Amino acid sequence: MTQMAGLKPKHFLWEVEGRIARIRLDRPERKNPLTFDSYAELRDTFRALVYADDVDAVVFLPNGGNFCSGGDVHDIIGPLVAMDMKGLLAFTRMTGDFVKAMLHCGKPIIAAVDGIAVGAGAIITMASDIRIATPAAKTAFLFTRVGLAGCDMGACAMLPRIIGQGRASELLYTGRTMSAEEGERWGYYNRLVAADALEADALEMARRIVSGPTFAHGITKTQLNQEWSMSLDQAIESEAQAQAICMQTRDFERAYKAFVAKQTPVFEGD
Amino acid sequence: MTQMAGLKPKHFLWEVEGRIARIRLDRPERKNPLTFDSYAELRDTFRALVYADDVDAVVFLPNGGNFCSGGDVHDIIGPLVAMDMKGLLAFTRMTGDFVKAMLHCGKPIIAAVDGIAVGAGAIITMASDIRIATPAAKTAFLFTRVGLAGCDMGACAMLPRIIGQGRASELLYTGRTMSAEEGERWGYYNRLVAADALEADALEMARRIVSGPTFAHGITKTQLNQEWSMSLDQAIESEAQAQAICMQTRDFERAYKAFVAKQTPVFEGD
Amino acid sequence: MTQMAGLKPKHFLWEVEGRIARIRLDRPERKNPLTFDSYAELRDTFRALVYADDVDAVVFLPNGGNFCSGGDVHDIIGPLVAMDMKGLLAFTRMTGDFVKAMLHCGKPIIAAVDGIAVGAGAIITMASDIRIATPAAKTAFLFTRVGLAGCDMGACAMLPRIIGQGRASELLYTGRTMSAEEGERWGYYNRLVAADALEADALEMARRIVSGPTFAHGITKTQLNQEWSMSLDQAIESEAQAQAICMQTRDFERAYKAFVAKQTPVFEGD
Repeated sequence: MTQMAGLKPKHFLWEVEGRIARIRLDRPERKNPLTFDSYAELRDTFRALVYADDVDAVVFLPNGGNFCSGGDVHDIIGPLVAMDMKGLLAFTRMTGDFVKAMLHCGKPIIAAVDGIAVGAGAIITMASDIRIATPAAKTAFLFTRVGLAGCDMGACAMLPRIIGQGRASELLYTGRTMSAEEGERWGYYNRLVAADALEADALEMARRIVSGPTFAHGITKTQLNQEWSMSLDQAIESEAQAQAICMQTRDFERAYKAFVAKQTPVFEGD
Repeated sequence: MTQMAGLKPKHFLWEVEGRIARIRLDRPERKNPLTFDSYAELRDTFRALVYADDVDAVVFLPNGGNFCSGGDVHDIIGPLVAMDMKGLLAFTRMTGDFVKAMLHCGKPIIAAVDGIAVGAGAIITMASDIRIATPAAKTAFLFTRVGLAGCDMGACAMLPRIIGQGRASELLYTGRTMSAEEGERWGYYNRLVAADALEADALEMARRIVSGPTFAHGITKTQLNQEWSMSLDQAIESEAQAQAICMQTRDFERAYKAFVAKQTPVFEGD
Repeated sequence: MTQMAGLKPKHFLWEVEGRIARIRLDRPERKNPLTFDSYAELRDTFRALVYADDVDAVVFLPNGGNFCSGGDVHDIIGPLVAMDMKGLLAFTRMTGDFVKAMLHCGKPIIAAVDGIAVGAGAIITMASDIRIATPAAKTAFLFTRVGLAGCDMGACAMLPRIIGQGRASELLYTGRTMSAEEGERWGYYNRLVAADALEADALEMARRIVSGPTFAHGITKTQLNQEWSMSLDQAIESEAQAQAICMQTRDFERAYKAFVAKQTPVFEGD
């Protein structure tokens, strides 16, 4: 297992406190765009999180009032326009690998969204497990507005399962902004909070989650992804196996003993 | 075919009237917990329902102001903590088999939810086809609070398809209660009614359904489950076959003749 | 490639203007029912649209204040009651092929719904990509009311992904009308507009879409259907390939150049 508290990423901000990793994309003066380098480093970081011993949840936070402006036009779109197919596929696979790494990292991810969250920035929120936003959050899957398709980094698969097929279709064909109010009403955001309460609220949610049975949370995350395209009978058998594993953890026993002793269980993640 | 009106289950209440089976879990003083015995008897009853000739719909009703408090801590959780893997998997498969039996019983199931519906109690409502609740309904997929994962009896597959992936994730990671108002807004409950109207309303819905073409309803239920993980083209071909079967029923002819005669069709389920 | 502006269908109304095809079902005095002939001609038209060079989006419009009353009782249901299995399956496959042709036509489809949209009429709206309705829209998947199952032309697969599994179950078992207000709240309709603004609004949406990168829109439509039953990892790889294709279009380059020149991009669909 790895310790990740000491990580010093070059292309985004990283802190670990109380078993919660906090990520902020950087360059607030440009609304925190992604670059080739930050994509790759984020991918590698989420891949490493699988083995991290000191992190049980991740929170993506805004920076300077915005979440993320997506792939930088000059740093990313310009070079892509000049690239051959081999290079293009390497790029789209790298961004896809970042989302896969988020899905497979084994820790719940919370996105705290304020201001602009567009393009790949919207995708980061979509690929998170829980989303909390301010009334000023502006999310747009705007790929179509740069001449591309709505199918970027899993959007045609994931967005319809979050907000419904009809609403997702409109957002993906038009690239229009989803307001915070729409997002809450449609089930994209779990809730809206005032801007000055956003970070505290997202961290409180993260603390609630890391105070739970974190081994079992990892299994929940695995199953939410794993059962995506299973039949119902397959999913039920898969859950029977997965939950039987969790019933052999000490956290399950701790919960039982605490209940019998009329105490609050203290989970330790094993 | 079997007659099920005369069933005398030992571990829950059962009545059949007007081709509608009514189930109430028992022990209202403890909010109707499930036990090893009631799980097994429910599984066997829903398996038998496939062949029942005198039941066309099932209604789960509350008892003493509550729906179900889930697996009993003393009767179920205690023994599980001491059990080996073979026993644990036998248990999780039995509870999964109960849900599978609900899905495959061939009759629409309506859950009428009041008060507490938590753990396996929440799962019973989730695995029903239609859910009606009172404003006092408190539903929690609280597995995480006893040290387990959210993946219990199909929850990671089914809950996201009912209320959306984001809302389901929060409920499954935190184990928090979903209020009745949230449940209605999110599509979990088909509607809310006052407590003193709940049973009449659920039975009225059941009567409406059993007055319809019940053979065809069984096909609808089969297809809703069967198409869960098919491609769209496969689902459309599967429906072409399934609907062609229904077009050879007498109920289809009855509807046509009634229409021509400007009468209301009387369906007979064949 | 084919030109479709000159199409003269016999069984529905067809106009092409500004790269947008407008379809109206005919016989408003009977609320625009479908017949064997109109089904087949619609299927063939949507199959031809794959190769159409002069159409980039389709709008289904109401006629005489109603959208579509579904399969005509005298022209369709009567003959079906007398038909053998070979004929019935040929019919249900033909209607299914119409929906498949809508899904595979490669152009976004907008349904503008007013008044009655029931049975196969409801299915047409369901199989469209975007739905706009008036407050008077009455949509019912009423198959059960004519003695059939809810599984018609893909409804058990598609409706749950648009409005959620629980709401879809109720509509499919009861055949009841979904009001316009419910439809908007549940994500079936993208928005409601006044009757006298409906056509302008739907056409404005279509114009917005055809002014975008139409080759990429076709890829978006392909992926929304294609990823329906993929695993998440498969979907992400599939999008990496699909988006890499779009990155070699001139529309992507046009968008980049327009951005650098601080202009609005003019897309040309290649």
